[in-house]
Amino acid sequence: MTHSPETPITDDSFTIAGRVFHSRLLVGTGKYRDLEQTRQAIDASGAEIVTIAVRRTNIGQTPGEPNILDVLPPDRYTILPNTAGCYDVDSAVRTCRLARELLDGHQLVKLEVLGDQQTLFPDVVATLTAAEILVKDGFEVMVYTNDDPIMAKRLEAVGCVAVMPLAAPIGSGLGIRNRLNILTIVENAQVPILVDAGVGTASDAAVAMELGCDGVLMNTAIAAARDPILMASAMRKAIEAGREAFRAGRMAPKRFASASSPLDGLFF
Amino acid sequence: MTHSPETPITDDSFTIAGRVFHSRLLVGTGKYRDLEQTRQAIDASGAEIVTIAVRRTNIGQTPGEPNILDVLPPDRYTILPNTAGCYDVDSAVRTCRLARELLDGHQLVKLEVLGDQQTLFPDVVATLTAAEILVKDGFEVMVYTNDDPIMAKRLEAVGCVAVMPLAAPIGSGLGIRNRLNILTIVENAQVPILVDAGVGTASDAAVAMELGCDGVLMNTAIAAARDPILMASAMRKAIEAGREAFRAGRMAPKRFASASSPLDGLFF
Amino acid sequence: MTHSPETPITDDSFTIAGRVFHSRLLVGTGKYRDLEQTRQAIDASGAEIVTIAVRRTNIGQTPGEPNILDVLPPDRYTILPNTAGCYDVDSAVRTCRLARELLDGHQLVKLEVLGDQQTLFPDVVATLTAAEILVKDGFEVMVYTNDDPIMAKRLEAVGCVAVMPLAAPIGSGLGIRNRLNILTIVENAQVPILVDAGVGTASDAAVAMELGCDGVLMNTAIAAARDPILMASAMRKAIEAGREAFRAGRMAPKRFASASSPLDGLFF
Amino acid sequence: MTHSPETPITDDSFTIAGRVFHSRLLVGTGKYRDLEQTRQAIDASGAEIVTIAVRRTNIGQTPGEPNILDVLPPDRYTILPNTAGCYDVDSAVRTCRLARELLDGHQLVKLEVLGDQQTLFPDVVATLTAAEILVKDGFEVMVYTNDDPIMAKRLEAVGCVAVMPLAAPIGSGLGIRNRLNILTIVENAQVPILVDAGVGTASDAAVAMELGCDGVLMNTAIAAARDPILMASAMRKAIEAGREAFRAGRMAPKRFASASSPLDGLFF
Repeated sequence: MTHSPETPITDDSFTIAGRVFHSRLLVGTGKYRDLEQTRQAIDASGAEIVTIAVRRTNIGQTPGEPNILDVLPPDRYTILPNTAGCYDVDSAVRTCRLARELLDGHQLVKLEVLGDQQTLFPDVVATLTAAEILVKDGFEVMVYTNDDPIMAKRLEAVGCVAVMPLAAPIGSGLGIRNRLNILTIVENAQVPILVDAGVGTASDAAVAMELGCDGVLMNTAIAAARDPILMASAMRKAIEAGREAFRAGRMAPKRFASASSPLDGLFF
Repeated sequence: MTHSPETPITDDSFTIAGRVFHSRLLVGTGKYRDLEQTRQAIDASGAEIVTIAVRRTNIGQTPGEPNILDVLPPDRYTILPNTAGCYDVDSAVRTCRLARELLDGHQLVKLEVLGDQQTLFPDVVATLTAAEILVKDGFEVMVYTNDDPIMAKRLEAVGCVAVMPLAAPIGSGLGIRNRLNILTIVENAQVPILVDAGVGTASDAAVAMELGCDGVLMNTAIAAARDPILMASAMRKAIEAGREAFRAGRMAPKRFASASSPLDGLFF
Repeated sequence: MTHSPETPITDDSFTIAGRVFHSRLLVGTGKYRDLEQTRQAIDASGAEIVTIAVRRTNIGQTPGEPNILDVLPPDRYTILPNTAGCYDVDSAVRTCRLARELLDGHQLVKLEVLGDQQTLFPDVVATLTAAEILVKDGFEVMVYTNDDPIMAKRLEAVGCVAVMPLAAPIGSGLGIRNRLNILTIVENAQVPILVDAGVGTASDAAVAMELGCDGVLMNTAIAAARDPILMASAMRKAIEAGREAFRAGRMAPKRFASASSPLDGLFF
Repeated sequence: MTHSPETPITDDSFTIAGRVFHSRLLVGTGKYRDLEQTRQAIDASGAEIVTIAVRRTNIGQTPGEPNILDVLPPDRYTILPNTAGCYDVDSAVRTCRLARELLDGHQLVKLEVLGDQQTLFPDVVATLTAAEILVKDGFEVMVYTNDDPIMAKRLEAVGCVAVMPLAAPIGSGLGIRNRLNILTIVENAQVPILVDAGVGTASDAAVAMELGCDGVLMNTAIAAARDPILMASAMRKAIEAGREAFRAGRMAPKRFASASSPLDGLFF
């Protein structure tokens, strides 16, 4: 979703499914040393939306075990249950329904239907089918997809409230592999576009925001850093920096400072 | 200069010529609409060191005209006179001496000796000669150079207090063209390394810091943005984000999340 | 499809749908000045397979007009009718059937179902459906798709005889935007992988082959060059160069010549 | 040196120091298994100019040992003695004089004065000094340098007959790290520009030629391939492909095929 650069600096919030958010950094909860480190890193990130893999994390389905919601209280964070680990439509849909039940009718979910265990790339056909089922069932679906602009529009058309293209494979840390695709998705969207998966370091997050994305979701880049809490702070600042740079309107790149040094026809 | 990642977060200062600084963003004063915009942008940048082109800007040599030091008081900012516009040893040396006189014995200067008007790349042979003369004359020389690791070491060897390789041509906004060269310079240095010239947007600045640079100097990227003051804020955050990411120790990139997906032998 | 590097140099043919080919450069017929230039360029390219957009080019459906088969005789070239310009399953399937009729039962087709007129990216859902219909109807389907490794495997699974991921948008000349995706597709394939669309110059074609692709299909890169015939020759050599480099096994890249300069953890 | 694209295809020779050459691939002789493999690879490369490291290879200074000139007869190849392994002016100058003596007054040499053993980057100050001495002494100096456009012009100004910027560190195989610098050097040159060092595979060589370079010199990329002889053939074709693509005038890259999709302002 492209944004009017005239938006006043004083209110740069964005909206997903009618909820207003001020932080554009969304985080996951996996791969931390323990719940205390999870809590501290998420606190340092400034995130308002925290995604939880329902099939891997206890949000109440296993009574008597530590519950992630004890450190991430739903009155403070918007909990975003996700379907990580689902490889078909049925398991993804069932996982969302389980989450809704455990979270007292919570409708906002992040859908992912994976294609294989090697790449963790989405199965876009199954994703589209699951998205249609979930939307009809009343869910507000944020959807993980690849960086295909056609599929992004299709997922928007079936009623997803946000589209979340990958930057690179989940957990790879390779940064945005195809900036032109992300840019095309952003330019054509009517719903928020959030980069999901593949960010490795702070500059990657800044690039996503400079392309006009509404936000970035990450987990491994923070949790697998040597110092996750300091990296969470870095990511928070990088997201703000990239967003401000996008709104500030960067200088045009040129070969040399002189007026007559265009880059036309050069692309490398 | 590589940094111990164990440095406590609470004090991440760095030192140039015995002076301690907390901001790693250095800024210039050119190309702004007026002095008021200059003042506001520099304020938003959080910079402690401000570089001034002595041949283009009045720091007292033209009495009766507006003096940049009225908006950038030397008791608040470390003024860094530079030799922009000098194409030979003599004019660069003379410019530094003029600045020292106008600034009451101020020794800290940024030396640049340019090779031609098209590229604004440095003439490294003349730069080396001028650096030797200025160091012997008591100056504390921060030196603009290209991204050649051999020349960076040579400039350090003759006594420069900081080495400032370009990211890309001055005023181009192309970002860091050769990351491996900047990384090699950083790894081999015993003095601070600051990227000077070529940064275009926030992520470029973050990348420089993630490579281990001690700071970044920029002017056009802020002044030529549509909203320079907002871009100054973006750059401040990007520098901090990149620095924190460097200190936090980023995750290792891999092709896929699985443990057994190394990138060895791939380089693109 | 990965290839054994031990294949003897003397026979480096490859096979599509049981046909053996020696040239790995496939070309289109659009955008040339006239039929004579088309003929000369295709001759210089050394191509054995020539793709023809049935909806734009006369292969007999318009009697009395110039027929492309007069300059591209089917006894010399393998004609590959394609469905360029089709935006839905029905028109793509109908176009293939028309081509089969005009070409006396010819089964080999290149399927493309486009997603929109701006990007010319494929609609992968419609592409998959059309592929299934055509395979069941006896066609040998070479299929244009995006660079999604999951979709490439799916198209192979429904019986396509070759999978043809894009390098970049059709007609863009941007080269391979996401090398890792193309590499992943190649590594996982059991059928020939040919890059289709987006190549702009000779080195782009060489890169595709160095990644292990079986071939490259292009049209605009040759037809829109200033000298199409010379560019056709360049592409022929580039394809051979890239193929030989792949088979020869390139040196491992390293930061420096010294044995102890690995690139691990660097990815830019 | 930029070339008129109107040069007829039938004669695309180029000239160094008055000698006319048809092959634009120059090769070294190091790192091969034995002299026979050296001979076969150089034969497959089609090279007319072969560079020899005088300090490492016997061209007559060690009577009784195998002499490389036995497999590379000077009546067939233009022998280009080089100063590899020299780290100061004196040793480089002495090495050239030794070569001239051993080769009966041969004046054509490749000068390299290295800056350190880690990077093998040139010491450009010492290189410039040595070049001036050698030119005055009657040598025809082809000179290895970094990718600094200012230094390239300086070396041309002191009378070097060809300037040879590195693509990446010697023996690294990283390809052209900074295409804009190489392009700038080519655009401003009046003598032949040949990329020397850093090429890793065929597409790298093609890129150098597409930038307008007159030729490429390489050694490790061929000698350290799994199959050096096949890689030599790949490089020969890649150089020809890149050269023809340069002369053919590539299509302008654009975001999409549509006329109205310029890339202005995008640079990644």
